[in-house]
Amino acid sequence: METITPDSFVLVYRDRRRKWLVRPKDVPKLHTHLGILDLTSLVGEPFGARATTTLGDELTVLKPTLEDMIMKLSRKTQVIYPKDLGLMVVKLGVHSGSRVVETGTGSGATTALLAYLVQPSGMVYTYDINPEFQAVARKNVEKMGLSDYVTFKVGDAKQGFGIEDIDAGVLDVGDPWEVVQSMKASLKPSAPMAAVTPTTNQAERLVQKMKEEGFAAIETFEIMIRQMEASVGMTRPASMMIGHTAYLTFGRTTRDGVQQDNRIA
Amino acid sequence: METITPDSFVLVYRDRRRKWLVRPKDVPKLHTHLGILDLTSLVGEPFGARATTTLGDELTVLKPTLEDMIMKLSRKTQVIYPKDLGLMVVKLGVHSGSRVVETGTGSGATTALLAYLVQPSGMVYTYDINPEFQAVARKNVEKMGLSDYVTFKVGDAKQGFGIEDIDAGVLDVGDPWEVVQSMKASLKPSAPMAAVTPTTNQAERLVQKMKEEGFAAIETFEIMIRQMEASVGMTRPASMMIGHTAYLTFGRTTRDGVQQDNRIA
Amino acid sequence: METITPDSFVLVYRDRRRKWLVRPKDVPKLHTHLGILDLTSLVGEPFGARATTTLGDELTVLKPTLEDMIMKLSRKTQVIYPKDLGLMVVKLGVHSGSRVVETGTGSGATTALLAYLVQPSGMVYTYDINPEFQAVARKNVEKMGLSDYVTFKVGDAKQGFGIEDIDAGVLDVGDPWEVVQSMKASLKPSAPMAAVTPTTNQAERLVQKMKEEGFAAIETFEIMIRQMEASVGMTRPASMMIGHTAYLTFGRTTRDGVQQDNRIA
Amino acid sequence: METITPDSFVLVYRDRRRKWLVRPKDVPKLHTHLGILDLTSLVGEPFGARATTTLGDELTVLKPTLEDMIMKLSRKTQVIYPKDLGLMVVKLGVHSGSRVVETGTGSGATTALLAYLVQPSGMVYTYDINPEFQAVARKNVEKMGLSDYVTFKVGDAKQGFGIEDIDAGVLDVGDPWEVVQSMKASLKPSAPMAAVTPTTNQAERLVQKMKEEGFAAIETFEIMIRQMEASVGMTRPASMMIGHTAYLTFGRTTRDGVQQDNRIA
Repeated sequence: METITPDSFVLVYRDRRRKWLVRPKDVPKLHTHLGILDLTSLVGEPFGARATTTLGDELTVLKPTLEDMIMKLSRKTQVIYPKDLGLMVVKLGVHSGSRVVETGTGSGATTALLAYLVQPSGMVYTYDINPEFQAVARKNVEKMGLSDYVTFKVGDAKQGFGIEDIDAGVLDVGDPWEVVQSMKASLKPSAPMAAVTPTTNQAERLVQKMKEEGFAAIETFEIMIRQMEASVGMTRPASMMIGHTAYLTFGRTTRDGVQQDNRIA
Repeated sequence: METITPDSFVLVYRDRRRKWLVRPKDVPKLHTHLGILDLTSLVGEPFGARATTTLGDELTVLKPTLEDMIMKLSRKTQVIYPKDLGLMVVKLGVHSGSRVVETGTGSGATTALLAYLVQPSGMVYTYDINPEFQAVARKNVEKMGLSDYVTFKVGDAKQGFGIEDIDAGVLDVGDPWEVVQSMKASLKPSAPMAAVTPTTNQAERLVQKMKEEGFAAIETFEIMIRQMEASVGMTRPASMMIGHTAYLTFGRTTRDGVQQDNRIA
Repeated sequence: METITPDSFVLVYRDRRRKWLVRPKDVPKLHTHLGILDLTSLVGEPFGARATTTLGDELTVLKPTLEDMIMKLSRKTQVIYPKDLGLMVVKLGVHSGSRVVETGTGSGATTALLAYLVQPSGMVYTYDINPEFQAVARKNVEKMGLSDYVTFKVGDAKQGFGIEDIDAGVLDVGDPWEVVQSMKASLKPSAPMAAVTPTTNQAERLVQKMKEEGFAAIETFEIMIRQMEASVGMTRPASMMIGHTAYLTFGRTTRDGVQQDNRIA
Repeated sequence: METITPDSFVLVYRDRRRKWLVRPKDVPKLHTHLGILDLTSLVGEPFGARATTTLGDELTVLKPTLEDMIMKLSRKTQVIYPKDLGLMVVKLGVHSGSRVVETGTGSGATTALLAYLVQPSGMVYTYDINPEFQAVARKNVEKMGLSDYVTFKVGDAKQGFGIEDIDAGVLDVGDPWEVVQSMKASLKPSAPMAAVTPTTNQAERLVQKMKEEGFAAIETFEIMIRQMEASVGMTRPASMMIGHTAYLTFGRTTRDGVQQDNRIA
């Protein structure tokens, strides 16, 4: 049974709004408004324990999931939400061994998710024009122990990714249409890509460019997620919800021009 | 470059409503209302080609993605949609090497997705009370080349899964509250589970049972997905959308009772 | 108690998909796949009766509501849905005595709703460039007995409505930005207007024009409505829903330019 | 042209989050963080003017709409939102001359909307078990000048409304199923009612009771509204939205039992 070490990330959980992601070695005593929790005393314990603060409040000490980790990372910059990441993963089919290209790196949240899924034999190539952003992302990926599955590159993806035979691509930049050609050149024939754009205008312009570049199965979606407060006799949706994060556009490369002859009929 | 073989599944794609998932060995000539496509002539070609039917209509020959395959499988019985599968994957953190338990097997669509993600070193244990359903699922998983990563079991999960130290669990049965104890016994401490329930009443009853069994971080969500028709100067959401598939409930096991002593304070 | 006459519209109702809006004088015997219903035998009866067809199926004979009538009218052309009309009514504050301007007339569904609300002392001025459309709308409004509260005008609203001191305005044309100045000239100072546009591009362009023309409190909304299937122990949202009808943009005229002096400070 | 009087309610508007609903006689000088606005200097001016604060900030002085007034009233207690009120108005067909029954009165926001629509010849009968609530509502309705169209009654609607031949009914209480029989007794045959319930459990129980009492055309809906931020080249939905207010259930009375004979066939 896996036990907590000083190096372990632990999720100290009270409810969805009150939770802390910390390591005993970084935060020996966790000070909260619910009291102090002695994290060093948890070392050697298995995950999943209930623990009591100095004020007598009961917290649960969970092993962080992938989602806990990436949502924590996301705080710094633009967020991609699990609802959106989930659809991307399923539609891109990213899994162990996949070689994926991504730009921009941002906080490394998407990078980390992709790295987590391609391990141990795959690789995520992530590009960002901003070296400082990427330094933060690199640290985040290291913390999650995923550095072996990520190749960080500082540079402008509009000039090309400089790699080929890629299984799937992710675009999360303000002007994704400028990178569509680079993406096309790097992806295997028929390989899928995804792009994340907050505005309708960006989605419109991106789709237009993807059509021009011969992409097939182009689709744009938006996903809304709403929490349900399920409790006996009082079940109802949550009063507030996220109204919008981004539009997700998908497509697959084709070998246009090549097959127009009459060999296949 | 990967080329089409007689055994390859190919997705013959015109648009999102007109597409066919076939193998050249099964369907040498694909008859559609758009004309006939000679699939045998595609053997040896790379994926991503444009091909012309006997009526002159242009189709694209794509390599099916994971989503194409599982959506095809889903047709037979109850469907779990990519929007829902995606959130489950991210929240459960399923990846290469994970050991996952699932009930019921259904058409094997979720099973196949999980198997795809846990390969090559993980395992999906899937239980169904109905041997006929599972026979169909087994065939579906075989077609996708994922049999090595799935252990099929016919039986009633309410009596226990008979396995331990599991990383993540999925419940997709009509009375999931009856299987919560079995799930708890099989999951590692702090490990996450997901359950899929169409009605509010099921979600309510399930959450109540999970609370009683000491699960933490219990959350219920519903996801809505809407297609956006992005085209220059005429961008608008699609007129029709899926209104509801299922509520998704998540939670993590805890070691309740054990940690109530004063060792941790 | 109000009883059915040969001239009465009656809503013969089985369920939300099987219902008929007819008059005994037009359809003495209603033939349905559930059997024949003798409508003449209903004359003299109060509304709300259960009636049995020749095949023994039980139907309910309801007095049509405003919504039943306008949804019936809407079938012919572009539809504005009750969800959208409702928000418009509340935000425009249309009520007895209001003077309202509208373009285009379309099928007259919105016209009829507005007329219904402004009676007996108000007036709806409705403009359409297409005389044939308006002829249909005129007939629809007559059928509902609302002709006294509608002034039909054939013409291009871009050239001005030719009326002033209007309480509220509704734009339902493809290029509403072209009519914003006419609207502004007709509305009372501070009076509200609403516009209905299917695409994001139209909403964007309209809002820009309204800003230029000094409108205040400009807001754009979209409304989604989902049916809930509430039944004991099996409550769940409907599987399908309308994904999109239109964006609704609201704003109020201001007296810009006039008040910029220092009289008010 | 209507001008501002000391008694006029004015909506001082900056943007949708910064707006004030005041009367010059109550607030001669409006103090805001944007500066002070001398409201007395506005008396005699028409509505719609731009006015400048002492800090040089420009505000717009609008005539409040019905929505402005009822949203202001709603602040005190439970809110019914315009999105929900709008659908109710259209589905109930409330208009000049309608006689409407409502319970509970709450803050009087719905009461005021209904009174506004039934004037000058209709009447809203509103019941509340809590005399203090109703005193607040009465004051709110008076402020809006709608007292002539509302009859306030303190009492338990479960015992019956004590009035008949009503055109439409609204239930906004925690246990609406307890009032369904009273509603049925007061409504005209075939007349519509609406009920507002926050939870799925309430909707489920209400619908069951309405079925038992022979209501026809029973439907439950939920309405979601999302603001669109329409601006040139940057159009996108608002980041946050209201996730849930209430389920709306509608139905119409029938004359069950009466028509079961063979007179109508």
